[in-house]
Amino acid sequence: MIEEEIISQNEKKILLIVLDGLGGLPVEGKTELEVANTPNLDALAKNSSLGLTWPIDYGISPGSGPAHLALFGYDPMQFRIGRGVMEALGVGLEITNDDLCIRANFATKKGNIITDPRAGRLKGYEVSPDEKNRQLTQRLQEALKEIKGVEIIIRPGKEHRFVIVLRQKGLSIDLEETDPGRNDKKELLIKEPKPKSKEAEFTAEVLKILIEKAEEILNTEPKANYILLRGYSKKPNLPSMQERYKLNPAGIAAYPMYKGIASLLGMKVLETKPTWEGEIDCLEENKDKFDFFYLHFKEMDMKGEDGDFWGKVKLIEKFDGLIPRILKMGFDTIAITSDHSTPALLKSHSWHPNPFLLFSPYGRTYGIIEFNEKACAQGNLGIFPALKVMQLLLAHSLKLKKFGA
Amino acid sequence: MIEEEIISQNEKKILLIVLDGLGGLPVEGKTELEVANTPNLDALAKNSSLGLTWPIDYGISPGSGPAHLALFGYDPMQFRIGRGVMEALGVGLEITNDDLCIRANFATKKGNIITDPRAGRLKGYEVSPDEKNRQLTQRLQEALKEIKGVEIIIRPGKEHRFVIVLRQKGLSIDLEETDPGRNDKKELLIKEPKPKSKEAEFTAEVLKILIEKAEEILNTEPKANYILLRGYSKKPNLPSMQERYKLNPAGIAAYPMYKGIASLLGMKVLETKPTWEGEIDCLEENKDKFDFFYLHFKEMDMKGEDGDFWGKVKLIEKFDGLIPRILKMGFDTIAITSDHSTPALLKSHSWHPNPFLLFSPYGRTYGIIEFNEKACAQGNLGIFPALKVMQLLLAHSLKLKKFGA
Repeated sequence: MIEEEIISQNEKKILLIVLDGLGGLPVEGKTELEVANTPNLDALAKNSSLGLTWPIDYGISPGSGPAHLALFGYDPMQFRIGRGVMEALGVGLEITNDDLCIRANFATKKGNIITDPRAGRLKGYEVSPDEKNRQLTQRLQEALKEIKGVEIIIRPGKEHRFVIVLRQKGLSIDLEETDPGRNDKKELLIKEPKPKSKEAEFTAEVLKILIEKAEEILNTEPKANYILLRGYSKKPNLPSMQERYKLNPAGIAAYPMYKGIASLLGMKVLETKPTWEGEIDCLEENKDKFDFFYLHFKEMDMKGEDGDFWGKVKLIEKFDGLIPRILKMGFDTIAITSDHSTPALLKSHSWHPNPFLLFSPYGRTYGIIEFNEKACAQGNLGIFPALKVMQLLLAHSLKLKKFGA
Repeated sequence: MIEEEIISQNEKKILLIVLDGLGGLPVEGKTELEVANTPNLDALAKNSSLGLTWPIDYGISPGSGPAHLALFGYDPMQFRIGRGVMEALGVGLEITNDDLCIRANFATKKGNIITDPRAGRLKGYEVSPDEKNRQLTQRLQEALKEIKGVEIIIRPGKEHRFVIVLRQKGLSIDLEETDPGRNDKKELLIKEPKPKSKEAEFTAEVLKILIEKAEEILNTEPKANYILLRGYSKKPNLPSMQERYKLNPAGIAAYPMYKGIASLLGMKVLETKPTWEGEIDCLEENKDKFDFFYLHFKEMDMKGEDGDFWGKVKLIEKFDGLIPRILKMGFDTIAITSDHSTPALLKSHSWHPNPFLLFSPYGRTYGIIEFNEKACAQGNLGIFPALKVMQLLLAHSLKLKKFGA
């Protein structure tokens, strides 16, 4: 409910640290964060306000897109970002309002059957999967620059994934995805990008040709001989964080999707080495140039998805070691939280509320000397929607004026 | 906010136990639940997530209908069930969309005065009140099958209460009730079923004739010589739990109203002996046939309404004794809560939040070793709307897919 007239600009600097997938579930009685030895976070907790945030709603496990939107104060039920758009932004494409963005990936096809919808994740070549991906997408891009007058842009992603953008006015997203699914069936029939409405017929025709030509180009490949398309989407019309909060925001993230989200919300996406230390260096170097920083650390989520409880514990401890350097930079307001929980127990995103720590000279503190799910459940901020986090950050930075007289 | 596309069906079984009126208020420092000796519930709490639920909204004491609707995830401000409909369903009537359902009861009338609006609860006959009720309603039904072309259906309820259904298209509920009230006044003037709008004139005429004819039929009765009408209502258009949650739900309840609510939401209402042990037997027998069970225990609410603090304590302890049998059945997700509080101190439904216990392998647990209002207020689920309970039950049963990418 932040209305423009209550926003007040000042020099105070906000740092929002997102530890992707931080929250967990107990294994033998304790969560990853409860087990981890985190002296710096615990000391910080003592001087902070604690709480838990519901990412979207009770019981709802969010994808990264909606979870981040909520965290930045954008209601994910109102603003929806398609996966294609996030991936396109993530690989650094500056997309236009007309672009049709597609999340594509290499697959293995035999006859009419997809025998591997991920083409073995492009493993087993002399080069790395990402390098193989670059080579294959380059071959596709060189041969496919235009179909029926529509500009085709193809960019590599991670492992077997890549991005296709169709650039022309009037394209539709109302088509069937061609990914036959992600189940354990051995035989997955190929699917056509069928139009779901009359408006989508031309787009469907272009994509059909695109798939056929890609198959011709890839026909010498033993594994990556086919492409699958999903996540058709266009750039959503989101008001920027500058407009909404009168902030000058920057985003620091190693992974494409998070850069993409930052860019979509009007953050300046800063160049960083894709390591945690690199991200902290980047923060240090740019500290004076912006008044809001989104700092994203991805890897805990990946350990959670892998079911690697102790790997996640180690990463939490590694992050704890970075705290002194971060505190030294002197941010006025620091929040440490996650976009969603990724319990190793579930090997997936979950609905459980996120630990939330808010460090500010203007916060109430209750001397809780731990930072974990249990301590946060006892915290003075209670359990509240992630959508309200930005309001708290702005308030604690004295960037909100009184509402009403 | 459960959208159809995030619902995922699986084999997991959910048990929602509603201890009607469980929550209480302290008398000499402790509530009914805090006083009760409940070793089994306390042990279960240790391995469960705890919280408190607001039945409807802060400070609002709900009737059984809205309280249950919220608990099943149906916003009671959006979906309204009239009392007549609930009673009609409760006595096993399959009502149609056109039916006008009326909650009726026998009363004692002298001249223009209702001297007893409950006809002594039909006590003091050679037969039981319920048997007397059956005899009287049978007499009415035999003589009154149709008025002005409208089919009349009359069924006995408990004690002095019964149900009248008028079956025909175009009937209206926009009429004044004829129950003169339930206060302590000695003299209650009779009231006519006056139409409140033009559309209700025909219905009012039918009901006026109905009341007059009933009076003629009952004129030999010393006590039950008149009938009172209230709760005019029609079947609300509720999406079923099958549609909403893709569940195959069953309801087990001893009392008509709760069977009625279960039926209205598409649950299969199971035949059960009207005892707690009978209900547990029924659960055990049917466990394999459904994936969601609503198990309702009524009597704590009645003790609360009677102001019988220690009677309620004893019933809580009796329920505690049933826990081992329930746990042995191996449900994947179990919730124990109430629809509303009924503190003996107030002798009525109250607005106080309901204790809520969620037992699941995918819950956060904090080793709280008690189940009562105080322990639940410290729980990791916080205080949240009862309307969100179903989302949590589905999530903890892994029946919800990720929202967004």
